Amino acid sequence: MGLESFWAKEKLDTSSGINSLETPKISDFHVHLRQGEMLKAVVPMISQGGADTILVMPNLVPPLTNTEMVLAYKKEILDLDPTLNLLMTLYLSPELTPEEIRKASASGIVGVKMYPLGVTTNSQFGVADLSSYHGVFKEMEKVNMVLNLHGECPSNHETNVCVLNAEEKFLDTLKYLHNEFPKLRIVLEHATSKAAVECVKSLGDTVACTITAHHLLITIDDWAGQPHNYCKPVAKFPFDRDALRQVVVDGSDSAPHLQSKKESSSPAAGVFTSPILLPLLASVFENLGCLENLQKFTSDFGRAFYKLDQPPSTIRIQKSPTLIPNSFTVSQSQSKTDSNPSDSSIARSSSNSSNCIVPFLSGTQLPWKILE
Amino acid sequence: MGLESFWAKEKLDTSSGINSLETPKISDFHVHLRQGEMLKAVVPMISQGGADTILVMPNLVPPLTNTEMVLAYKKEILDLDPTLNLLMTLYLSPELTPEEIRKASASGIVGVKMYPLGVTTNSQFGVADLSSYHGVFKEMEKVNMVLNLHGECPSNHETNVCVLNAEEKFLDTLKYLHNEFPKLRIVLEHATSKAAVECVKSLGDTVACTITAHHLLITIDDWAGQPHNYCKPVAKFPFDRDALRQVVVDGSDSAPHLQSKKESSSPAAGVFTSPILLPLLASVFENLGCLENLQKFTSDFGRAFYKLDQPPSTIRIQKSPTLIPNSFTVSQSQSKTDSNPSDSSIARSSSNSSNCIVPFLSGTQLPWKILE
Repeated sequence: MGLESFWAKEKLDTSSGINSLETPKISDFHVHLRQGEMLKAVVPMISQGGADTILVMPNLVPPLTNTEMVLAYKKEILDLDPTLNLLMTLYLSPELTPEEIRKASASGIVGVKMYPLGVTTNSQFGVADLSSYHGVFKEMEKVNMVLNLHGECPSNHETNVCVLNAEEKFLDTLKYLHNEFPKLRIVLEHATSKAAVECVKSLGDTVACTITAHHLLITIDDWAGQPHNYCKPVAKFPFDRDALRQVVVDGSDSAPHLQSKKESSSPAAGVFTSPILLPLLASVFENLGCLENLQKFTSDFGRAFYKLDQPPSTIRIQKSPTLIPNSFTVSQSQSKTDSNPSDSSIARSSSNSSNCIVPFLSGTQLPWKILE
Repeated sequence: MGLESFWAKEKLDTSSGINSLETPKISDFHVHLRQGEMLKAVVPMISQGGADTILVMPNLVPPLTNTEMVLAYKKEILDLDPTLNLLMTLYLSPELTPEEIRKASASGIVGVKMYPLGVTTNSQFGVADLSSYHGVFKEMEKVNMVLNLHGECPSNHETNVCVLNAEEKFLDTLKYLHNEFPKLRIVLEHATSKAAVECVKSLGDTVACTITAHHLLITIDDWAGQPHNYCKPVAKFPFDRDALRQVVVDGSDSAPHLQSKKESSSPAAGVFTSPILLPLLASVFENLGCLENLQKFTSDFGRAFYKLDQPPSTIRIQKSPTLIPNSFTVSQSQSKTDSNPSDSSIARSSSNSSNCIVPFLSGTQLPWKILE
C-alpha cells in the first residue's frame, strides 16, 4: 500500500468550494537544508514551496556547535537565496557554555537543538545526559532563546523502548525540563503521538510542538516497506495521526536524502516536502475541512511563539492540479532534465538515484498549486 | 541500527560449552519457494540450511487454488531436489469446495492456507469474508486437514487497524474459528506478538502457532529503515519478541525476494533464511541458553502436530564460524560468482541487485555451521 491514491483513499471531500486564496507565505519552523550539493539543490525549493521564513536545523557533519559555524552556514544559505528570513539554531554539545549562549543570542541565533544520542540523522554527536546542561538552559531562559527538542529516547530493548514508543517515553524528560525551567520556551519538534500532543497541551504557553506536514497524512502502514516515507520519529497509529490533525502549530521537518540513500539496504530517515509545502498543506487542510485554519498552522501560531513581529508577506494559491515530480536532481552537471517539464510548476528530472531526491507523494497530483 | 553485530549487541553468552551436536534435520512448517528462476535458486538451499521436510506455501501467481496446481508445483520442486519431504498446501479461494478438499486430502495435500485480502505478498487473491467457507472448514475437519492462517486483519484507519496491531486484531477470528470447528487443526502462522502467543496457548491442542527464526531476533527497530528485515507480519515490540522466545513451535517463513525488490521505493515483504536456517537457530538457541530445546523447535513439536510418524534423519552441526554471504545469485547465466567462495560453506555472488537474493544477517558470521 502506498499514498499514490491518497486523496481518493481517504474518501474525504476534496472540495471546499474555495478556488483561490491569498495567504501568508509559510513560516516553517523545522527545516533540514543539509550541506554541499544537496544544500544548493534544496535552498531554491524553499520559496518554490511557498515559504519565506525558516528555522534551520544544525545537524550537519560536523554539527553546528558554535556561533561562528552557524553564522557561516547562514551566509552560505543567504548566498543561495537572499530573500529568505533565516532563524538559525545551534547543536547542543559539550562545546556550548553560558558565555557561548550569550554570544549566540547577541548574534541573532534563536534556538538550540537537542538530539539524543543516536536517534536520527547525524545524531551520533548527540546528548547522552541532560544534567550537565543546566547552566546552558538557565542562560537560554535568561536571554530568551528557544530549546528545540528531538523528543525520543534511544532504543533500549531491555526496557522495551523502541522506535514506536520512543517519543512517549521521552515525555517525562520534557515535563522535567519544563518544571526546572518554566520560562524557557521549549519546542517538542515533530510530535507524532497522541500522548505527546496531550502532554504539550498540559504544559502551558512556554511549551509548544511542531507537527510535520507528512505526519498529518501517514501512519505506520505508509512507511512499513516505503523508505521514502520513513522518518524519525516514525509515523504511528491511526489514532495518533487523528490527534495531530486536531492541533495546529507549524513545522514541515522537510528532510531530503538522495534517492540512493532511501532505496537501499539501510534507508536514511527523512521525508522531503519543501518544494510542495504550501500546495500540500492547502490540500490536506481542505480535505480535513478546515481550510480556514491554514494560515494559523502555516504562519500565525509559529510566528507568535517565536515572537516575529513583522507582518508576513502573502502569496496566492489556486485550486488547480500540481503534479509532484518523481524526483529532483541534486547536481545539474551529472544529470539530464526531463524533456517535458511543462506539466508541472517544478522542473523534473530523470536522473539516476545517487543524484536525486524523491519528494513526498512523488508522481501524484495535488489539488492546489501556487500562482506564479 | 542494524543486526550487523547482533551476537555482540545482545551481550548474551554465546558459549554453551557444547562444540558439536547431532540433531534431527529441520522440519520447517512454513516456507516460500516462489516460482520460475527464484524457485530454481531457492530449492537447493533448503537442504543446505539443514532442512529435509517442509510445508510449502501456495501464494504464487496465480495462487495454487486446486489439487492439480498443487501437485504440478510439487513435481516441479521434486525435480529440483528429490530428497525433500514435501507437505503441500492449497490457497483458500472460492474455487475450493468440500469435494475439492476430499480430493486434495486423498492426494496427500495436508493444509489450506488462508490469506486475508491484501495483507502480504500475493494476497491480492485473498479472502475478504470467511463466512462462505464453513462447508470447506467442516470437510477439512472431517478429513483431518490443517488450516494455516495468515493471521492479520487488513489495515483500516477508521477502526485504528494498522500493521502493528493487525495480528492482535485478528485473534477474535482465530477464537471464533476454533469455537466453530474445535477439532480442526489450526496453525496461526508466524506469530509475532505476546497477545498471539497467549491466545494460542489458551485454545488447546488443536491450535498451534509457528514462530519464524527471524522473529526470535528482530523487533520494530530492526525493520524500521531496513528493507531486508521487513516482513509481514512485521516484528513488534521488544516485549513481544521476549514472549516468542519463551515458546517453541517450528516454522522459518523463509521468504526470498530479489535484492532489487527489497532495495527500492516499495520493498517487498519477506525475510530469507533458508540457506542458513540450522546454524542460525543453533546460534539463537545457544544465545538464549536453551540449546537443549533446539530439537523440539526444529523438529519434535511440528512433526507431532502434523502427525509425521517416521523418525527424522539427523545431521551434525559444529561450533565453527559460518560467514553468511552478502547475496545469492538467482540466475547463474546472468551473474558471476565471487572469486573466493572458500571462506563460506555456501557459494557467494557479486551480481547486480535484480539478480540476487540477500539473506537475513547477510555479511555477518554465525557461531555454528553444518558439518558436511
